[in-house]
Formats: sequence, structure tokens, C-alpha cells
Amino acid sequence: MEEGMLDVANASHYFEGVEKLLEIWFEERPEQNGDLRNITRPEWEELLRHVRCEIISFKKNDFIDAFLLSESSMFVSKRRWILKTCGTTTPLRCLEQLLDLAKQQGYTVITDIFYSRKNFTRPEVQQSPHKGFYEEVTYLDSIFPEGRSYCLGSINLECWYLYTFSRPVVVKALPDLLLAAEQEDHLNTDPDQTIEILMQNLDKDVMLAFNKSRFATGPEATQHSGIDQILPDMVIDDFLFDPCGYSMNGINEQGEYMTIHITPEEKFSYVSFESNVALNNYTRLINQVIRTFKPGKFIVTIFANKSSLAYDTMKELEIEYSTLSNWKRTDMQCCSFPTYNLLFAQYSRSVENWA
Amino acid sequence: MEEGMLDVANASHYFEGVEKLLEIWFEERPEQNGDLRNITRPEWEELLRHVRCEIISFKKNDFIDAFLLSESSMFVSKRRWILKTCGTTTPLRCLEQLLDLAKQQGYTVITDIFYSRKNFTRPEVQQSPHKGFYEEVTYLDSIFPEGRSYCLGSINLECWYLYTFSRPVVVKALPDLLLAAEQEDHLNTDPDQTIEILMQNLDKDVMLAFNKSRFATGPEATQHSGIDQILPDMVIDDFLFDPCGYSMNGINEQGEYMTIHITPEEKFSYVSFESNVALNNYTRLINQVIRTFKPGKFIVTIFANKSSLAYDTMKELEIEYSTLSNWKRTDMQCCSFPTYNLLFAQYSRSVENWA
Repeated sequence: MEEGMLDVANASHYFEGVEKLLEIWFEERPEQNGDLRNITRPEWEELLRHVRCEIISFKKNDFIDAFLLSESSMFVSKRRWILKTCGTTTPLRCLEQLLDLAKQQGYTVITDIFYSRKNFTRPEVQQSPHKGFYEEVTYLDSIFPEGRSYCLGSINLECWYLYTFSRPVVVKALPDLLLAAEQEDHLNTDPDQTIEILMQNLDKDVMLAFNKSRFATGPEATQHSGIDQILPDMVIDDFLFDPCGYSMNGINEQGEYMTIHITPEEKFSYVSFESNVALNNYTRLINQVIRTFKPGKFIVTIFANKSSLAYDTMKELEIEYSTLSNWKRTDMQCCSFPTYNLLFAQYSRSVENWA
Repeated sequence: MEEGMLDVANASHYFEGVEKLLEIWFEERPEQNGDLRNITRPEWEELLRHVRCEIISFKKNDFIDAFLLSESSMFVSKRRWILKTCGTTTPLRCLEQLLDLAKQQGYTVITDIFYSRKNFTRPEVQQSPHKGFYEEVTYLDSIFPEGRSYCLGSINLECWYLYTFSRPVVVKALPDLLLAAEQEDHLNTDPDQTIEILMQNLDKDVMLAFNKSRFATGPEATQHSGIDQILPDMVIDDFLFDPCGYSMNGINEQGEYMTIHITPEEKFSYVSFESNVALNNYTRLINQVIRTFKPGKFIVTIFANKSSLAYDTMKELEIEYSTLSNWKRTDMQCCSFPTYNLLFAQYSRSVENWA
């Protein structure tokens, strides 16, 4: 989230807070003893040069390595890699190097890949292959020939793009009961879920906390803003950029992570929240995030695989959040993918409801 | 569905079976005594000149006027107008004339508009403003400034486009119970639902029935193929084109309609089924249509408003049809719009399952 010197006189100053999010899962095989966390710091630094960002801080526990980057975050687990970068970074350009490094750890088969982002506010300043979603898809298709690409939300207004590939699940033509039994078998995968809340038009007063003129350090901004209360069991690594901007990673002893990135400038304010925390119901979490940052509009996406607790409650959320809050839901879509379900919803503030 | 002479030697012979579907609802007001069915035959003929198609047959009952066109169908009810045309027709070009004719009947407010189509197989032969979905959206946005546009399915593979506009439903910030009561109030609209099944790669032997070399008339093809058994209470108006191609409209005494259009040529076979028949569950109907035409792949879309019987059973269908059949579901998406829900699903044949 490192941003150039804020030049108030320069009307063209702009920072694209919207992140490009890449998540890749590799297949665990019995004979394979590798671990993506064995990849060395110099190897990651070299890989991130292709992305055009740097490591600025690092925390780890028994389950996950969490890197705070000059432009967002990277999370490395045994067989899962997550890279989230904003600005004009080029995360897709490091894919071939990542696949090489993974191969050295014995990972040669990808089970799932997700590349997603909200529409850019200023697509024209992005670098290739990120100049548009079609260019990104063409690039991804050159590496993963079976990917599928989606546009959620209204394609002439605001939307969220997703490219996804899952190793095909072979479903044979079987009598119903056998088929049901075979489907049960898919439950033997690890539960997994990811929630993202992408917020824009944020409250001016809330955003003040994420300026160096207000606080000297990340931890002060974290505590003042209430970020430390969102998921209290997370060990936090936070950073306040000069002159403004904020990033944090959190990890807990369940191997779960959270990450928040803030572009506070009023003209293009943007805050993203992401976590893979396992919850039965995400309504409370969404409400707390929204109360913390007070956006004018936001997008929620929830991915959950069939083993996840979130899987069954996604549809509950669909109903509950629209009736229990004073937000206007401008879009709501669900997608069923081979191993994951996705809920996408867009909200905008219809009344002043911070009371 | 009228097609040029089939020139076997001419490899470039092609007919775009994929239809453009336009459905518009006008607001009923107490002081207004008009009826879209008062629009005269010459007026419709003039309107359809802009679309580049002609009326070839006509049937009516107390509820609905059903026109069979040289390129698909038009259905006119008191306040609802449906136009479905294939080939290289230009249905959006008649919109301004339609709004003029509706105005003469006292209809000045549109409550809902839906424009949808599958991706064209050969978009390059389409005429403006149908050369691409962005062009269509730009055209529609010039008339309906609040429309939203969606792409369902995979945007780099097969997909289905939708442009929709619903008169905004004002939802105020009210306590939960009051809000629930207000939502109940929306149930006072007429129940409405539409199912479409768009089929490709159809069984060669089934398609033989829709050639003049096989049958002399539409009714023979209708009976032989089993089309008359799909919804037996429908009064059918059918037409077999020379040398091949088939269209039918059906209307019943509940004011419901069905329509089927067939492009039988093996290289670009396409069949569409559409109906607004009210059913609790559409699984049986889908199965019957699929058994009748034996496609290699198909798309199902179901729209249902909150008053429709179909509304609650759409999610049942989502689960049931995937486990009760031997089809591979390649995509499944649901969308919640202000007054309608939409279910979209794509299936392809994974095994020879006609036994």
C-alpha cells in the first residue's frame, strides 16, 4: 500500500487500491515431502520482482507464513499460496516462476486456482497482462487450458471478475444412491472458505486514522480503529505507510489468516478485508467490518467448498443480511463450481445508517 | 426460422438459430383502458420491418395473441410484449416504435424489461446494434438509463447475456417487522415465470423430422416428434419451413404460452423451448424436452418473480436435476434481481444416456 508522496496540487494523483488476488492449491501426494514454506526468502524476493513489489515485514506460526508486502500481502502454507497485490503490480507475471519453485518442492499438480479482482477504477494505468480482464484470461489460459472466467455484478457498471480452474471431478453415470455416496466421498477434502469484503467511498473520519500525520505506527492505527477487535485471536503484523496507507496481516493458531489493506485518500478511498476464518455464519463478521470502516458501498464474496461449515449457511446469509440491515442490495449472485460455491453480493448505503 | 436454400456444396451455408429475446411489461394504471392487443396488424407489420421479419401465422385466445414469424415468434398480452427472433434479425431496432404504439394504448411506464440471448456462434454476421453484447447494451442504455447487464456462464467459453431493468422497488429503512410486512406487499403483483431450454448438438435422427423431405406440414412434424405431448393443453400453431426448419407457438386457456424453434442442420443444429407455464417443479418438464430433442448440450434459464410458484422450487431444482440425471453440469448460477430471481444452468452429455 506504499504510495507516492501525496501531492494535493496534482489532481492526477491516484492510487488503485483494488487488488489482484491469486490463490493456488497444489495436490498433496503420499510420496511427496515438500512444503511451499521451504522456498527461501531470496527466492520469494526474486519472484516478487516480477510482480513489482517487495517484502516489508514477516510473521509465521506452525501453519502459515505471512508476508506483508510493499503492495499488500502474501500467505504461504504447506500446499497453498496466496498473493494479493494492488496498485499497478503484475502478479500474473510471477506464475511460471511460482510453478517452478513449487515443482522443486514436489508439487506438480494444481487442484484449484482462483484469480479475482474488482473492476479497476483506472484500468488504463495498469501494466500488461493486467490491462483488461480479457488480457488476463488470455494469459491465464496460456498456462491453465481448462480455466473458466466469470463476471459477477453488472458488466456495464461495477463488477468483480473471477478466473477459476479446479481439477475436474469425475462423476460417472451411476444409480442415484451410488452417486450420492460418491459425492459424500468428496467431503474428505480439507474444509476451506474465504470471505472478502471490498469497500469504497469510506467515511472520512475513519480514514484519518491511516495517515502518518495522525499516528506514528501501525499498531496505534490498528488499536484506534478497532481492527484488533474484528478477529481478536489473530496475531497482527501491521504497517502504516508514509504519508498514508495501511496494511495488516493476522494469523492464528488454527492456521487461519486475515488481511486488511487501506487506501485512505478521500477521492479514491478503498479498504479490503479478507479471511479464511471458519464460521457458521458471516453476518456478524460482515457487520463488524462494515461498522469499523463505514463504507458507502461494498462487495462481499464468500467461497466455500463442500467440506466447509460456511457451505450450508451461505444461503442463509443471502436472506438474512438483506433483511437485517438497512443497506440496499444492488446485486446478489451465487455460483456452483465443481468443488466450491461462491456467493457474491453488492450493497450500497441507501440512508445514513451509522446511528 | 425460414432458411435459404440448403446448398450442400457451399460450406459457408450457416443459419444462426440462437434467438434474441425481448420481453417488456408495462404498468397497469386504474385510469388506463388500453390493451397492447388493440395494436393493428398493419402496425405490427410495420414494426417488424425494422426487425427484418414477417408474420406468417396467427392464433389467439381471450388472454394472448400469438404470432408465428418468419424468424421465430411474437406474443402480445394486455400489458406484456414478447419478441423472439433468430438469424440476423434486429429486434432492438423496433423498440422506439413499440414504445410509441404502447403509448397510444396509454402505457407510458415500463415495469420490467428483459433482453437476453446465448452467445452467437457467428457474431460477425450480425447487423448493428447486435454485433456484440456491448453494442446491444449501449443501444439499450440509450433508451433505458437504469438497466443492468450480466454475463452468465464462462465468458471465454459459452455464455448467456442478459440486460434487465426493473422499476426500482423503494425499500425504506424500517424496523425488521415493518420491512417484512412491506415485502409481503410486493406479493400483490401477478405471478410470473419463464423457463427457457436452449439446446445444441442435437440428435441427427430426431432432427430429420424437421425437413420438408420427411413431412409435408408442421402438424405432422409436431405429432411425430412428440412436441404435442410436452404441454398437452396447448393449442398449437406450427410451421415447417422449406427445405427445413420448424417453429411452433402454443397457447392455453390459462393465458400461458409455449414456443419451440428448430434449426435442424447437423452442422449448426439448435432448438429452443420457452414457456411461462406455472409449475411447482420444472424437473419433469426439462426431462421431457430433453428426451424429445436429445441435445448434446443445453442451457436452462428460469426467471420467477416473488409471487410465482416457481420461486421457492428453483433451488430444489438446482439440487435435484444434477443428481437425478446423468448430465454433467458445467455451470450453475443464481441471480437475485429486485423483483425476479434467475436460475441459470449449463449441462453437457457426459455419457450416452438415451437408454
